[in-house]
Amino acid sequence: MPLEHQHLRYNPLRDSWVLVSAHRMKRPWAGQVEKPAEEHIPRYDQNNPLCPGNKRANGEVNPEYDSTFVFENDFPALQPDAPDPGSDQDPLFQSKAARGVCKVMCFHPWSDVTLPLMKKEEVVKVIDKWAELVKDLGTVYPWVQIFENKGAVMGCSNPHPHCQVWASNFLPNEPALSDRCQRAYYQKHGEPLLLQYAKQESEKKERIVVESPDWLAVVPYWATWPYQTLLLPRRHVLRINDLTADEREGLAAIMKQLLTKYDNLFEVSFPYSMGWHGAPTGSYLEEDNSHWQLHAHYYPPLLRSATVKKFMVGYEMLAQEQRDLTPEQAAEKLRNLPEEHYKTRQT
Amino acid sequence: MPLEHQHLRYNPLRDSWVLVSAHRMKRPWAGQVEKPAEEHIPRYDQNNPLCPGNKRANGEVNPEYDSTFVFENDFPALQPDAPDPGSDQDPLFQSKAARGVCKVMCFHPWSDVTLPLMKKEEVVKVIDKWAELVKDLGTVYPWVQIFENKGAVMGCSNPHPHCQVWASNFLPNEPALSDRCQRAYYQKHGEPLLLQYAKQESEKKERIVVESPDWLAVVPYWATWPYQTLLLPRRHVLRINDLTADEREGLAAIMKQLLTKYDNLFEVSFPYSMGWHGAPTGSYLEEDNSHWQLHAHYYPPLLRSATVKKFMVGYEMLAQEQRDLTPEQAAEKLRNLPEEHYKTRQT
Ligand SMILES: O=P(O)(O)O[C@H]1O[C@H](CO)[C@@H](O)[C@H](O)[C@H]1O
Ligand SMILES: O=P(O)(O)O[C@H]1O[C@H](CO)[C@@H](O)[C@H](O)[C@H]1O
Repeated sequence: MPLEHQHLRYNPLRDSWVLVSAHRMKRPWAGQVEKPAEEHIPRYDQNNPLCPGNKRANGEVNPEYDSTFVFENDFPALQPDAPDPGSDQDPLFQSKAARGVCKVMCFHPWSDVTLPLMKKEEVVKVIDKWAELVKDLGTVYPWVQIFENKGAVMGCSNPHPHCQVWASNFLPNEPALSDRCQRAYYQKHGEPLLLQYAKQESEKKERIVVESPDWLAVVPYWATWPYQTLLLPRRHVLRINDLTADEREGLAAIMKQLLTKYDNLFEVSFPYSMGWHGAPTGSYLEEDNSHWQLHAHYYPPLLRSATVKKFMVGYEMLAQEQRDLTPEQAAEKLRNLPEEHYKTRQT
Repeated sequence: MPLEHQHLRYNPLRDSWVLVSAHRMKRPWAGQVEKPAEEHIPRYDQNNPLCPGNKRANGEVNPEYDSTFVFENDFPALQPDAPDPGSDQDPLFQSKAARGVCKVMCFHPWSDVTLPLMKKEEVVKVIDKWAELVKDLGTVYPWVQIFENKGAVMGCSNPHPHCQVWASNFLPNEPALSDRCQRAYYQKHGEPLLLQYAKQESEKKERIVVESPDWLAVVPYWATWPYQTLLLPRRHVLRINDLTADEREGLAAIMKQLLTKYDNLFEVSFPYSMGWHGAPTGSYLEEDNSHWQLHAHYYPPLLRSATVKKFMVGYEMLAQEQRDLTPEQAAEKLRNLPEEHYKTRQT
C-alpha cells in the first residue's frame, strides 16, 4: 500500500504540500519530554484573574459571572488607535497600520472544567457568545479571529477555560490565503471547496472522527499536526453567526464528542490551538462570499504520548511540514476511542 | 515614534505580513517555563550514538572521526525508493511521490562544544562539508536542505553538535515560495532582492548585528521570531558551494560572532533552528537563477530569558505571526553584547 510509504499531499486551503512519512513513528525518542498537564486545578483560586469576583491586572474586578464572561485583554496586541507608521515607499521596507481589539472570553465560572466536561447547554452559551462577538465586531472589522490556546505547551498561561477574540482592520495572512484558495476553487468548480470536501469525506469515511446530521469532524487529507482535525457544518454556512439554534446545539454536541476523544487519546487534558475561519466581515459583508464555508481548525501538538509532542522545527520551518503517521491512522485511532470522558469513567 | 506602536511589516521573501506589537513585552508571564539547556555535557559519552567509535541504532560503528562526520539518518523521513502513491485525480485528494535522502552531519568529535566554541578552522571544515554535500546531492536532487535544530526546545534529541541534510526530488513549500518572490522582484527591479536589501541594511545600520567585509547578519525588517537573524554574503552568490575559500573563512568568523552573541544574550547555549537557502539544484542547474542570493535563516525561540520562549500558537497559527518587540530593539540588544563567549570569560 503506497500510502504507507512517504509521499506528498496537497492542502487546497493553503496551496501547499505536506510530507507524510508514515514509517517515522518507529524511531526512538530521546528528546524533550513535556510536563504533563496539571490535573488538579481548584474550582476557584483567589489569585486567578479569570475567576468570578477577582481583580485583574488593570484593577478591574470581574463580576460574579455564572456563564460566559468577556472582557478586554489587559495586554492587547491590537489596539483601536495605533498611529499609521507611514511606509518609506521602498518595496523592501513596507509597513502598514494595524488596528483592532483583543478580548478574552471565559467559558465557565469554574476553573476545573473544560469544554468536553461542560454541559451541552453550557457549550451552546459559548457558541452563542462567539456568534455575538463575530456579529458585533464584524460590523467594523474585516476579520474577527476566535482562537483557543489550551495547555501550557500551547503557550496558555491560565488553566481557567477561556479563549481569545482578536479583531483587526486587516485580513491576516492565513484567512487571506484561505480566501484566495476557496475563491479560485469556486470559480473553477462552481461549488465551495469545503462543501465538496465534506461530501466526499462523508462517503469515504476513512478520515472521519465523529459525525452527526449537521456536522463533520475529520482528520483532513492534508493534516500537518499529528491529530489535527477540521470541524465543519454539512450545510453551506458562511459565518458562525449564521448557524441556526439547532445547528448550534449540534455543534455543542460534536465539540463535546471530539474533545472527549482528544482527552481520551492519552488520558490527559489534550492541549491544542483551535480557531474559527468564516467569511470575512466589515466591508466584505457587502461582497459575495459564496466561496466560503465556515470551519474550525484544531491543531494539537501531541504525537506519541501525554508528554511527547511533534516538533515543527528545522525542516518544517525552512522547507516543508512533515508528519510521522498518516491522517488515516490518526483518524482511526481517534474514531475508535470511547465516547465517555476518562475522567467521568473513573468516578 | 509610530514604530513603537503596533503595526504590520511586509516580508518580501514570503509575500506575507507580520504583526509587530512592541508594547507587549510589558505583560507579565505566568506560563510555561522551559528547562534550561544542559550546561555540563561530557566530551565523550559511550551511550551517545553520535560520538566517535560508538555503535548506532542500525548496528553500524562510527569511525574515530576527528573533524566532521556524515552518515545516513537511521530513521529517514525521505528515502530514495518510495513508490509513487498515484493521485486519485480529484483536486481535493492530490498526492505525489516524495523521494530523497536524509543525512546527519556531526560538526566535531567532542560533545561539549558548539559552533561558537569551536576554532575558526574547525568551522571552516563544517562549511566545506556543507558545500560538498550541496554539490554532490545537488547533481541529482532539486533541493538540498541543510538545517540545524539546536536545543531540546527545538526538538533536538542529542546534545552532540550536529546538523541534518535532507535532499528531495521536489522543491519544498518554503524554497518554492522564496523562489517565486525573488524571481518576481528580479523581474521588476533588475537586481536580486536580497542584494538590494543587504546594501540598504548596510547603510541604515539599525538592524545589523555583526558585519564584515564579505558578510552581514541582520535582524530582518520582517523578523517574526524575537531574535531571528538573516545571514548573507555581500557579493552575489547563488549557492554555498560557490563561496570562495576567503568567503568561507569570513563565514566561519561571522558565524562564531553571531552565535557567541546569541549565547551571551541569556548566558545559555542559545536554542534555534537554522538553515541555508540557495538557488535550487538538480535540473534547475541548467536554468538562470540570477534572482537568487544565498542566505541562512536563524529562528531562535527564546523571548524573555533562558527559559521563557515565544509561543507561535493560536493567533499566529490561525491568523498571522505576531512579535512582542521590534526588530530594531532585538538588533540593538544583540549588537551591544560582548564579543567574547560567556563560557570562556568565566574561566
Ligand atoms: O530528525 P530528528 O532530529 O529526530 O527530529 C527533529 O527534526 C525533524 C526535522 O526538522 C522534525 O521533523 C522532528 O519533529 C524533530 O523532532
Ligand atoms: O495572549 P496570551 O495567552 O498571553 O499569549 C499567547 O497567545 C498569543 C496569541 O496566540 C501569542 O501571541 C502568545 O505568544 C502566547 O503566549
